[in-house]
Order: sequence, then C-alpha cells, then structure tokens
Amino acid sequence: MFNAKKEKDKIVKFIRDYYENNNIGGVVIGISGGKDSGVVAGLFAEAIGAENMVGVTLPCHSNENDKKDALRVSDYYGFEMIDIDLTDTYDTFKKQIDKLGNFSEEELKNSDINVKPRLRMTSLYYIAALYSAIKGKTYIVAGTGNKCEEFVGYFTKGGDSVSDIKTIADLTVEEVIQIGEVLNVPEEVLYKAPNDGLSGTTDEQKLGVKYNDIAKYMNNETLDEEVKQKIKRLHEANLHKFEIPTYRK
Amino acid sequence: MFNAKKEKDKIVKFIRDYYENNNIGGVVIGISGGKDSGVVAGLFAEAIGAENMVGVTLPCHSNENDKKDALRVSDYYGFEMIDIDLTDTYDTFKKQIDKLGNFSEEELKNSDINVKPRLRMTSLYYIAALYSAIKGKTYIVAGTGNKCEEFVGYFTKGGDSVSDIKTIADLTVEEVIQIGEVLNVPEEVLYKAPNDGLSGTTDEQKLGVKYNDIAKYMNNETLDEEVKQKIKRLHEANLHKFEIPTYRK
Repeated sequence: MFNAKKEKDKIVKFIRDYYENNNIGGVVIGISGGKDSGVVAGLFAEAIGAENMVGVTLPCHSNENDKKDALRVSDYYGFEMIDIDLTDTYDTFKKQIDKLGNFSEEELKNSDINVKPRLRMTSLYYIAALYSAIKGKTYIVAGTGNKCEEFVGYFTKGGDSVSDIKTIADLTVEEVIQIGEVLNVPEEVLYKAPNDGLSGTTDEQKLGVKYNDIAKYMNNETLDEEVKQKIKRLHEANLHKFEIPTYRK
Repeated sequence: MFNAKKEKDKIVKFIRDYYENNNIGGVVIGISGGKDSGVVAGLFAEAIGAENMVGVTLPCHSNENDKKDALRVSDYYGFEMIDIDLTDTYDTFKKQIDKLGNFSEEELKNSDINVKPRLRMTSLYYIAALYSAIKGKTYIVAGTGNKCEEFVGYFTKGGDSVSDIKTIADLTVEEVIQIGEVLNVPEEVLYKAPNDGLSGTTDEQKLGVKYNDIAKYMNNETLDEEVKQKIKRLHEANLHKFEIPTYRK
C-alpha cells in the first residue's frame, strides 16, 4: 500500500541529500496553478525552506485564473514569486514564422502547441542562472511531471521535460494528490482537473484517456480492452522521446 | 585505425535503416556554417537525398559571414534553406526580463548565453512539425554535436543538446573533419575554427582546452598534467546534464 506520509518524508530526504551532496542553494519552479507544481512546491518548501525558492508564473495568452491559483500556492508556503509574461515573445516569434509563407491553422497546429512549453523552459533556466549569480549560490530547475504523463508522453521534448531534479516523476496522479494532502496544498489547486491553461479543455480530454486508467495500465490491473490499446499506442508512439537514436562506432 | 570512408558508409546506413524502420520522411538541420552541421548535412544528403532535407539558418544578433558559409553547404548538396531571424524574439524576451529589475551585465551573462541555443531548438522543432504537416511525412531534427563537445559539456541543456537523431556524437572533432573530407564538405566550412558566431572568440578559447587534447584524454594518451586536470574538471562538472536525479519509490 502507498503510504503518502512516509513517501513524502522520503522525497524530502532525497531532495535534502541531493542539495547537500552537490552544494546547491536554491530552486526555481514554474508554478502553473495546477496540482503537480503545487505538490513539488510543497516538497521543496519542507526540504530546503521557502527562502531558497523562486516560483515563476509564465503566462502566454493565458487564463488569468491560473495566476490566482499559482499565488495560492506561493502564499501558503511563503516563497517569492516572479512573473514573466511570454505573450509578446511568442507573438514576435510567430511574426518571423509568418514571413516563411502562408500556412493554415491546421498546418501550424502541432508547431504552435509546443512553442510555449519551450519558451517556459527557456525562462525557468534564465531565472535559475540569474538567481545563481545574484544570490551567490546555485539554483536549479525542478521538474513537475508525474509518472502518468511521462508514460504516455504527455510532455514537450525540450520543454517541460527538461529539468535538473525530478521529485514526482515516479508517482501516479493519485499518489501526487495523496502527497499533496499530507503537504496541505491548497484545495483549489490540488483537486483542479489538470489543464494547460490555454485550450479550455482538460488534459484528459486532449489525451483521450484518464490518468486513473493509465495508472491501472502500469499496474497491470484489469481495464477495458479499447482503453488498454489506446494507452499502449500512446506509450509506444512516445518511446522515441526517451532514447535518442545515436550512431556508435 | 579510423577509416573515414568505411565509417561514413556505416553512418549513412545507420540513418537509412532508422528512417526505413520508423517510416520517417525528412530531416531538419540547423546549418550554422561550421563543420559539424556541414558534415551532418553531407551525411543526410547521401542517406536520404537533398530533396528530403531542410536547412535552417537561425541568426540572432549574428555575424553575416556565418550565413554565407551556411549557404556554401546548402549550395553544394542542393537542399532547401530557410532563414528564421531570432533577433527580435530575443530582444522581446529580454524586454520582459528587464521588467524584473536592474541587473548588471555580469549578473546576466550566464543567463543570456543560453537563450539563443534554446530559441534555436524551439525553431528547429517548429519547422520539423510544420514540414511534417505540409509535406505529409515525418520530419525529425538532426543533432550536430560531436563527442569532444559532449564530453566536456560544451552544449546547452534544452538547447543544441535536444535532437531526434545523433550521427556524429561518437566522433571526435578530428574524425568529423576526416569524414567531411570524404563527403567533400566545402573547405571554408570544414577547416574553420569552431565558434558560436556571437562572441568573436573560438570555442577552444572559451573552453580553455583544445579539442585535440580532449580526444587524447578520452583515448588515455599522454597529456600535460594541467591540461588533463582541466578536462577532467570540465567533464565532471557537466555530468549532471546527462542524468537527471530522479526520486524513485
């Protein structure tokens, strides 16, 4: 059985040990207003203290409500928050793309969707290097992906998948929530249906499968055959994101 | 002994096999005007044909000469080139950063230096998804890093290190040049001292060690003790880029 209190303690120890052994001082976390970054923030607050944390909100043509939820997290744990609005940067980039030709919305869809997570990654690393310089201690970027998302490849290569330390990547969504309860992550954040704050649909709607079913699949639990095949396909289609084919002499 | 002709043939076969087995149609390569991307372009031209290649120049407050050298490569192999100027995107991003406070150039140095490779990665993936949509076949992004750079961590995490296929990552700089000679990569490109096209200094000046010495170090050849220690330090300081510490239950 999953013991959320024990697991939380073990993750906190994992973070502390890594920080001590590598002489690291602080952390930068992209705070989306969703449960994953909320729980990661709670873990770091306990492990290294709020005074060594920087949260970053990274709106980009975004829903203003997400910023409110992000502030619930930083208010509760008491860490510093900064805001980098990526809307203009995104629009400027798109203007350069416009110069290449006339493309339909359908043709640009898959290209556009991954620009934001990549600009966000760029920003988090920018802040980590800047804080390392101004505070005189090393800041690293915390990953906020969970095991279910990783399994079906629901992340952007070179975007949210790039980080320096992963604390919840081996936890299912349900386990993340249970740890969030132990950490008192604000309810509005912890029980919100995960979404990217952009498209108006939830992550589960976009994926076409439920996170709970992904967890069941990973545990070999019984599952509707159609759902099973869908998860299998998503998983296999995304294996290439994990291992880059490399020529060896 | 390293046989450049044989090795070239093996890499070409590696690319062809991967493309066939995974039903991939094209490639996107960031063409910097330097030897690495020149050689990678030559390899793909032979493996999949120039008609399935897109080269991208990604200037960002850049030296105009680099674009000339990039065009030497695309002219020689005959593949399509597109240009995405990232100068405005970079400047717009920096304007948002300016809003955070007044920082000195020294404080911003490490942050600024990594923005460009990350915007370049973002652009290459943008083009890969766009060409996949408009050409009706999958385009992937080719990596252009060599073994010496990888060994000392001379790359940007989430930047030039992100790619879908690596063809020269197991070759030293000297081996890359030898393969480039077999492929007839234009001389001006192949024998140019590697540089980032931004700072006016060569990569070797910035690193403080010579690529040849890195190759010697990797082969356990005799080397001045001071140089040896310097390479060892660079290598060890960059190991964290390869394996992200991850909490496991």
